[in-house]
Amino acid sequence: MKFLVCLALACAQSFGQISDSTYPAVARRIVASGLKSCKAFEILRELSVGIGPRLSGSAAAAKAVAWGKKTMEDLGFQNVRLEPVTVPHWVRGTTEEATLILPRGKKIRLNVCALGGSVGTPARGITAEVVEVKSFDELRSLGDAVKGKIVFFNRPMDPTKFSTFEAYGGAVEQRGSGAVAAAKAGALAALVRSMTTRLDKSPHTGAMRYVDSLPKVPAAAISTIDANLLDSVLAVHSVVTARLNLSCETLPDVESANVVGELKGTEKPEEVIVIGGHLDSWDKGRGAHDDGAGCSQSLEALRILKELGLAPRRTIRAVLFMNEENGLRGGQGYAKMDRPGEKHIAAFETDAGGFSPRGFAITADSVSFDKIARWSSLLEPIDANNFTRGGGGADISELGKKGVPTIGLRVDGQKYFDYHHSENDTIDKVNERELELGAIALAVVSYVLAQEGI
Amino acid sequence: MKFLVCLALACAQSFGQISDSTYPAVARRIVASGLKSCKAFEILRELSVGIGPRLSGSAAAAKAVAWGKKTMEDLGFQNVRLEPVTVPHWVRGTTEEATLILPRGKKIRLNVCALGGSVGTPARGITAEVVEVKSFDELRSLGDAVKGKIVFFNRPMDPTKFSTFEAYGGAVEQRGSGAVAAAKAGALAALVRSMTTRLDKSPHTGAMRYVDSLPKVPAAAISTIDANLLDSVLAVHSVVTARLNLSCETLPDVESANVVGELKGTEKPEEVIVIGGHLDSWDKGRGAHDDGAGCSQSLEALRILKELGLAPRRTIRAVLFMNEENGLRGGQGYAKMDRPGEKHIAAFETDAGGFSPRGFAITADSVSFDKIARWSSLLEPIDANNFTRGGGGADISELGKKGVPTIGLRVDGQKYFDYHHSENDTIDKVNERELELGAIALAVVSYVLAQEGI
Repeated sequence: MKFLVCLALACAQSFGQISDSTYPAVARRIVASGLKSCKAFEILRELSVGIGPRLSGSAAAAKAVAWGKKTMEDLGFQNVRLEPVTVPHWVRGTTEEATLILPRGKKIRLNVCALGGSVGTPARGITAEVVEVKSFDELRSLGDAVKGKIVFFNRPMDPTKFSTFEAYGGAVEQRGSGAVAAAKAGALAALVRSMTTRLDKSPHTGAMRYVDSLPKVPAAAISTIDANLLDSVLAVHSVVTARLNLSCETLPDVESANVVGELKGTEKPEEVIVIGGHLDSWDKGRGAHDDGAGCSQSLEALRILKELGLAPRRTIRAVLFMNEENGLRGGQGYAKMDRPGEKHIAAFETDAGGFSPRGFAITADSVSFDKIARWSSLLEPIDANNFTRGGGGADISELGKKGVPTIGLRVDGQKYFDYHHSENDTIDKVNERELELGAIALAVVSYVLAQEGI
Repeated sequence: MKFLVCLALACAQSFGQISDSTYPAVARRIVASGLKSCKAFEILRELSVGIGPRLSGSAAAAKAVAWGKKTMEDLGFQNVRLEPVTVPHWVRGTTEEATLILPRGKKIRLNVCALGGSVGTPARGITAEVVEVKSFDELRSLGDAVKGKIVFFNRPMDPTKFSTFEAYGGAVEQRGSGAVAAAKAGALAALVRSMTTRLDKSPHTGAMRYVDSLPKVPAAAISTIDANLLDSVLAVHSVVTARLNLSCETLPDVESANVVGELKGTEKPEEVIVIGGHLDSWDKGRGAHDDGAGCSQSLEALRILKELGLAPRRTIRAVLFMNEENGLRGGQGYAKMDRPGEKHIAAFETDAGGFSPRGFAITADSVSFDKIARWSSLLEPIDANNFTRGGGGADISELGKKGVPTIGLRVDGQKYFDYHHSENDTIDKVNERELELGAIALAVVSYVLAQEGI
């Protein structure tokens, strides 16, 4: 009996006649195989613990590139290669301090860290009065009163939002553009409340920008507990001074690379499905959720397919993008590269942490959306069948601009910003099974799209 | 304008004419209010950190009862009372040790703990050869070969199951009935692999049973890491001996209580919706997820409704059940009590941990199921709208037998058995927002059912 079943399956495969009805069985095999070994976690451990933080341009980022290539080779992926990208090289330096100086001279050390891309302060630091604002509008309304001061941007992420990403979106302009707004107002520096709904003592770093038309003023994140403290102090004292001292700087660009490998399609190898995460991380923490998770899941998705002998008709390509955090050079470089004869039919990205998957968020025309979303029932057995409109990811956004459907893994996001860009982003915050389930979801849907096209 | 809206709402309320269309707005208010304060976590802290482990019959369990009553009173619930139940009083004692004695005399200490309800060993312990089995069938097949030995039940929870509860269900008979099976085979004791898919050094306790017709043999849980070690040792040595020493015992029953309080219905107070969790916990860990979470969420659901001025038409009653873990006396006592003129229309239970809610699992006739499930869309904004058939909980199972629809909160269950019944069940494993979202889900659905009936 077993022999006959095998024979029947072999025939169906050799004639390319696996029908839709076999996909639930394939999905079940993928789920069982993935959960049995939970190898995504082992891959993540190598990257997150073995290599650790890996900011673009750093020696650790170069190690991560080499590791990614070797891992793909060891896993037996095809066409494994590095695709060069030039990345910015910002370094934190050894000094990042802020001290609150109360009217009677009492000093309180604040937990701060430089924002990524910030210029440093003079070696003696910047000592100035602190002015707190909740918005850029409020800052503008203060006019000249901010000149020569340190602007403290203290609008919290809105805790009442269910979507922590929506709450982040409502606050992160302070981090990204706070230094520009402060410079425009004539201020000397910006201090930005950390982007988390959690009260903790860890400052959360992240990218910020300058514009050429304005002076570059230093910008730092302050932990939420220290932000609340500073707010309280400002409520009782009319004048509060702080000293900020940062030794960060931007060095010349560095040659780096995206790491690429694939399962080559057996029938239409020129049609490509990308699955990716970003290999770089901030230097705080160890980039476990952000985005070691996405890298390990991308590798694991292909590994499971290979282990189960599920050779895709179209090419499924894993891409470990470099420099998502502070430049997006990897995502841009990947999309720009001339790839004669190739057509990307979909791009998946995982960059929301290695938490339990809930489904996929898809940006595509409505016909493509429907074609992708009809497979959602395959993920019902793992409660990840909620496919929604509007999603993707930073690294695949350039592909999206070219008309490629972009698909982001949706996960349970309540805890993501507890860890995001801070020293708390470590592997002990990742659950083996939750991480693996994300890889499983990617494997199931990418495989079906590789078989059926879009 | 604001005045007119208030007036319109006041009129609608006074005539009991709030239509279905207002429920999404009510749900949004409940979500925002809950997430803003996250008070479930503060309640849980009082119970789980302030009081700690609270096994039935213990002094801490009595403290928990008093705390529950005072908390309900402080929150302004109505008809707050204790409903007496008599509970078993098992104590772990000070000794629980197991030592592996290798053929050449080398000794290895194993991480074990007595199973709840187990008899102790003689003071000198039980020293006997260890026989490993994976199932009761295998044990039976060994016949007399097990006589006078220690049976090691080592069938793991199946990691390939997505539902950890299903995996638990497939393994837990070893814990519940292993001692009986061992005694039937003439063995002296039972050692049971801990009920978790995780590899850790913490033994996970839990309830076990005896039957009157067989000798009571001691039973202990062994950590999964030690179980694997023991398995390896048994693979290379033909004879392996262990010594088990437990000082646990069962003392006389103790008077305890369920804690009950409610928001009395404004129109049909005699129709009652129960929301409950269990107040007792195992003595390992601090009963944070199991089931401090359920208690805090039950209290918080009513607190939110009260804070928002959402007076229900039918009574919503919070019940903190005593003795779920090793007797179910509270659940049985609640269901048995004569309550003249009252009719229970639904009973909610939360006892799967304070993780992100996914929806509700409902056991009810199909008409009632449809009436409850039609409200699932109210929880779509918090991704908790997956209402499925078949669910409830141990404490409300007796109400279920009387025909009351029973409804269990469904949560993301991947991590539950990492902590369950072990020293790892502590509040640092609980996320404020995830816990609160469970309370919010309970508040939304119980309120709508209280307004609309079933």
